[in-house]
Amino acid sequence: MKKEGLLIVVSGPSGAGKGTICKELLNDAHNIKLSVSATTRKAREGEVDGVNYFFISKEKFEDMIEKEEFLEYANVYGNFYGTPKKAVLDTLSQGKDVLLEIDIQGAMKVKEKYPKGVFIFILPPSLKELKERIVKRGTETEEDIIKRFSSALSEIEKIDNYDYFIINEDLQRAVYELRSIITSEKNRVSRYKEQIIKKFKEEL
Amino acid sequence: MKKEGLLIVVSGPSGAGKGTICKELLNDAHNIKLSVSATTRKAREGEVDGVNYFFISKEKFEDMIEKEEFLEYANVYGNFYGTPKKAVLDTLSQGKDVLLEIDIQGAMKVKEKYPKGVFIFILPPSLKELKERIVKRGTETEEDIIKRFSSALSEIEKIDNYDYFIINEDLQRAVYELRSIITSEKNRVSRYKEQIIKKFKEEL
Repeated sequence: MKKEGLLIVVSGPSGAGKGTICKELLNDAHNIKLSVSATTRKAREGEVDGVNYFFISKEKFEDMIEKEEFLEYANVYGNFYGTPKKAVLDTLSQGKDVLLEIDIQGAMKVKEKYPKGVFIFILPPSLKELKERIVKRGTETEEDIIKRFSSALSEIEKIDNYDYFIINEDLQRAVYELRSIITSEKNRVSRYKEQIIKKFKEEL
Repeated sequence: MKKEGLLIVVSGPSGAGKGTICKELLNDAHNIKLSVSATTRKAREGEVDGVNYFFISKEKFEDMIEKEEFLEYANVYGNFYGTPKKAVLDTLSQGKDVLLEIDIQGAMKVKEKYPKGVFIFILPPSLKELKERIVKRGTETEEDIIKRFSSALSEIEKIDNYDYFIINEDLQRAVYELRSIITSEKNRVSRYKEQIIKKFKEEL
C-alpha cells in the first residue's frame, strides 16, 4: 500500500529546543526531508543556497507571495522568510515525509493551508528552565529575552491548535516520542481507509 | 504531569494475529495490564481463576449484566464471556494502561461505553494469507473456516470505526507499530491539554 508522505510541523516557544530535537531526528531518519526556507536576506559565510536557505531577491519573493507560492511567510526585521509550497508538496507526493521546524505563528498559517499536517508542540520542562535556556544561548539581548519569556505562556495556551505535545526534558526521550508520533500517524485509519478497503477488495 | 492510563483495544478479523501481537507486546511492557474476562464456562485444566479468566456462575454473570457491570459481553455457544468494567477503570485510574484483545463486535460495544479508548484494527497482509492462517491453526471445522473467512471482508469494511490499523506482515514490525501508537497517544494534546496549561500556570 503506497502511503503519501507526512508533513511534520514541529513548533513551540523559543528555547523549548525544537531545533535540537529536529537535528537529532534527521540524523538517522532517511525518509524525512527537512524543508528549506526561502529568504531575501544575504547568505552568511558558509551558507549554501538550496541547503541552508533558498536565497532569492525581494522582487522574486514578492512575486511568489502574489502567486500564493508559500505555505507561510513572514517579514522579520525587514527580511522575508517563507516556506515554498511546491518543494514541500512534491516531496510528499513522492512518499517522503517533510519536516518543518517553525514558530507558532508560522505553524498556524501552515495549518490553514495544509490541515493534513501533523502539528507537534515542543514544551520546556518548566518556564524556569525555558528562561535559563534562552539566557544560556546568549544570542538574544536582555530585552529580547524578557519579550520571548513573557510570551511563552500565551504561546503555550495556543497548544489546543496542535495534535501532539512533547515535553523536552530528556533529548533522547523527546526524539523517541517524535519518532513514535510519525510512525503512528502512518497507521491512522482516517488517512488511509480508502486505500485499505480497495486493497482487500481487489483480491476478490 | 500525571497521565491517566490508556484503554488499548486490539481487534480485527479472526486469523489476523491479534493474540500473537498482544502477547509479544506484554513481554516487555511492564506498565500495561491485560484485561481478564469473566466467563461462565468451566475452567479447563491448568487455567487459573483471575489469570486466564474470572470463572463465575451464570447467576452472578446475569446479575452483573443487570447492574451494567460489563464494558461488553457476549453469549458464545451457551457460555457467557464479558469484560468487567470496574477492574478496567480501576487500573486506568492508577495510571496503568489496559490491553483488551477482543473481536470486532465486542470492540464496538466497548467504544460506546468508553470512547476515550484507543481502537486498533489488526489486518492480515492479504485475504489469502488470512485464510491460510486460519486453516493452519487447525482449531476450526471446515464450516467455521468458510464462515470466518467470508466475514473477513465485511469486517474490514468496519475499519472506519477504528483509530489505527496495523498490517501484520512482520510480527516485530507490527509490535513496534503498536508500541508507537501507545506512546504517541500519551502525547496527544486532546487528552491532556487542561493538565498542560495548569502545570505552566502554576509556576507563575
